[in-house]
Amino acid sequence: MPTWKLTLEYDGTRYRGWQSQKNTDRTVQGMLLRAAHELLGADATISGAGRTDAGVHALAQVAHLKAQKTMLESEVGWGLNERLPADINVVLVEKAPPRFHARHSAKSRTYLYRISRRRTAFDKPFVWWVKDRLDFAAMRRAAKLFEGRHDFSSFCENPEGQESTLVVVEKCDVAEVGQEIHFRITASHFLWKMVRRLAGTLVEVGRGTLDAAGVEKLLREKSPTPAKWTAPPSGLFLEKVKY
Amino acid sequence: MPTWKLTLEYDGTRYRGWQSQKNTDRTVQGMLLRAAHELLGADATISGAGRTDAGVHALAQVAHLKAQKTMLESEVGWGLNERLPADINVVLVEKAPPRFHARHSAKSRTYLYRISRRRTAFDKPFVWWVKDRLDFAAMRRAAKLFEGRHDFSSFCENPEGQESTLVVVEKCDVAEVGQEIHFRITASHFLWKMVRRLAGTLVEVGRGTLDAAGVEKLLREKSPTPAKWTAPPSGLFLEKVKY
Repeated sequence: MPTWKLTLEYDGTRYRGWQSQKNTDRTVQGMLLRAAHELLGADATISGAGRTDAGVHALAQVAHLKAQKTMLESEVGWGLNERLPADINVVLVEKAPPRFHARHSAKSRTYLYRISRRRTAFDKPFVWWVKDRLDFAAMRRAAKLFEGRHDFSSFCENPEGQESTLVVVEKCDVAEVGQEIHFRITASHFLWKMVRRLAGTLVEVGRGTLDAAGVEKLLREKSPTPAKWTAPPSGLFLEKVKY
Repeated sequence: MPTWKLTLEYDGTRYRGWQSQKNTDRTVQGMLLRAAHELLGADATISGAGRTDAGVHALAQVAHLKAQKTMLESEVGWGLNERLPADINVVLVEKAPPRFHARHSAKSRTYLYRISRRRTAFDKPFVWWVKDRLDFAAMRRAAKLFEGRHDFSSFCENPEGQESTLVVVEKCDVAEVGQEIHFRITASHFLWKMVRRLAGTLVEVGRGTLDAAGVEKLLREKSPTPAKWTAPPSGLFLEKVKY
């Protein structure tokens, strides 16, 4: 049974997230499945590396596609794109070994969160516009506190549903890009809503309402406060999956 | 009577162009007028430097705004933006001398046309996706032929409606930017649909269906052919107005 590794980009604005759901086909996986069934037959299956939430985007989501039918990689790419809406795009199709699993084989994921310091006519669905003045240096110092092995239960929706709330953050940085602040974080795995809550927490630091000691406390003791700071999905992009 | 110079960006996708029309308020000028009337009173007037067509965007359209009411520049900017939809944004408000006229005072305009050589999930409303292989070097040579003083009637919709079809093109270039080709042209003024027809003509050159001699002939003799090559509005941006 052929297995293909797909690299995908999508504008998540119109979708209820990645994961296909029973009562709606307005999911990215649902749209891909429908295209794959048309192209390759009803036995085609698709499984993604990251379950992006409603309104969250991907620059390079990875998924594996399995089907009985044999086909050239380029034919799979063109065939899927012809059947997909304009806001979902298959960037690359590669042959993969049969045991390749987009989620389980992944070594790390990188998410990008875009904060805009100005109103823009083009980017509303792709940024979080923060009107308050932000202390960038303080945000950069605070981002470094997230690096390493921590219990992120303060930053997780439904921590009880997780196997473990311990996450090793490989890299966590903020950068100034024009009028935007880009928050970028790499880890082996992420908890539900974790990136958006970390982004929201960093903005609190930028506003001056939370200091480094406060951030360290949230990493030591479970707190419900970061839930209130959950940043909007619009600014979030799954940027890279490493294997 | 105070006069303000507005620098504006907009995503033209949802609009029937810049120019306000009787039977619709779905124009950029119409949205701005409505906001200005609310903010400054019914005597406020707005006039733009370039009449962008339906679906055409602006990175820096310039308009002048006149009203009886006195107000700080910053208040005008915030006040308009609060009343405008997300796809229209006032970037800058400056005091202008009473004789400043966005259209008549302009020395030159620059338009950017974005051609994409790949399908993208994010940019469909902002590029023209050309699937054929394009000869970039040939396009660059052809773009240079447009520079200087020419009769552009072959590239103009309704040339009879124009005062003159003679246009001095100051600068005309193509550049490769990642997977895109950017066609950029500066002139004191432009004829109706001229940039989209020049872009379409360059793509014909890129495809190899038209050569330099063919382009030169279109500049010498009036021809209806470039009308068939009119590039879609999605790729076009009013990039700069110089005073």
